[in-house]
Amino acid sequence: MANPNEPENKELLYLDDLRVGQRFISGTHLIDEAQIKAFARQFDPQPFHLDAEAAKETLFAGLAASGWHTAAISMRLVVKSVPIRGGIVGAGGELTWPAPTRPGATLHVESEILDLRPSRSHPDRGMATLRSETVNQHGEVVQMLIAKLVVPRRTS
Amino acid sequence: MANPNEPENKELLYLDDLRVGQRFISGTHLIDEAQIKAFARQFDPQPFHLDAEAAKETLFAGLAASGWHTAAISMRLVVKSVPIRGGIVGAGGELTWPAPTRPGATLHVESEILDLRPSRSHPDRGMATLRSETVNQHGEVVQMLIAKLVVPRRTS
Repeated sequence: MANPNEPENKELLYLDDLRVGQRFISGTHLIDEAQIKAFARQFDPQPFHLDAEAAKETLFAGLAASGWHTAAISMRLVVKSVPIRGGIVGAGGELTWPAPTRPGATLHVESEILDLRPSRSHPDRGMATLRSETVNQHGEVVQMLIAKLVVPRRTS
Repeated sequence: MANPNEPENKELLYLDDLRVGQRFISGTHLIDEAQIKAFARQFDPQPFHLDAEAAKETLFAGLAASGWHTAAISMRLVVKSVPIRGGIVGAGGELTWPAPTRPGATLHVESEILDLRPSRSHPDRGMATLRSETVNQHGEVVQMLIAKLVVPRRTS
């Protein structure tokens, strides 16, 4: 499906082109039970991610995606919606999962530049702080990530 | 391969059983180029995770795993080495990737309890702060995660 937010359709931005407050809205991803279980089998094999019946008796009170699955899907949505030159290169970040991702959820990511900081030691790059909220079809935030990204500067 | 650190072989611990400074060492995971590319195609389709030749010209100077792939492998290693009753349920955390994960790396995770805090509103649970360092075969830390985990309390 064509996504008008794909960075292929946009100019790729240097640190110098970004501004604090700038926002990027991703396309969507529909997650289902098969995806949740496949990811969990490979990376997070716990009953509340693998077995809908067993999950009822847990803190999640029903099947939920691994938080790392939500993070991985969110990354794909960010890669395709935030047009930074050199790509999305994270040094790290702060991550919270305020609500579970359930089977049947349609997720999208709303990203906003919070801070921009040229490097002192490397004049060809800098650090952007990007807040990315992953939101489901009910408007609930299922993940908030505040990431530090390495972004190239114009050197001409 | 049998792993002596599998929680199946241990008593599962309540918050009351944990102590600050307690450490858990995981088994190992060998990551290869095929795994790196498969994860990247699905979740993080960028040249430095997909194409060894193209990756040479990027900040990574060679093929590197997605940080979210390192995170997902680390989660599997933690699930199998940290024997908490109710499983590993994260509310969020702080994540850094100090060095890239390269093809051929053998990863393990060293976890340590940093803080334990009973809940005021829910007497049946509390929050544990767990630092998990993902280390490669050269002793380099490729990921540090300081996670907040929801842990059940003994209620007898």
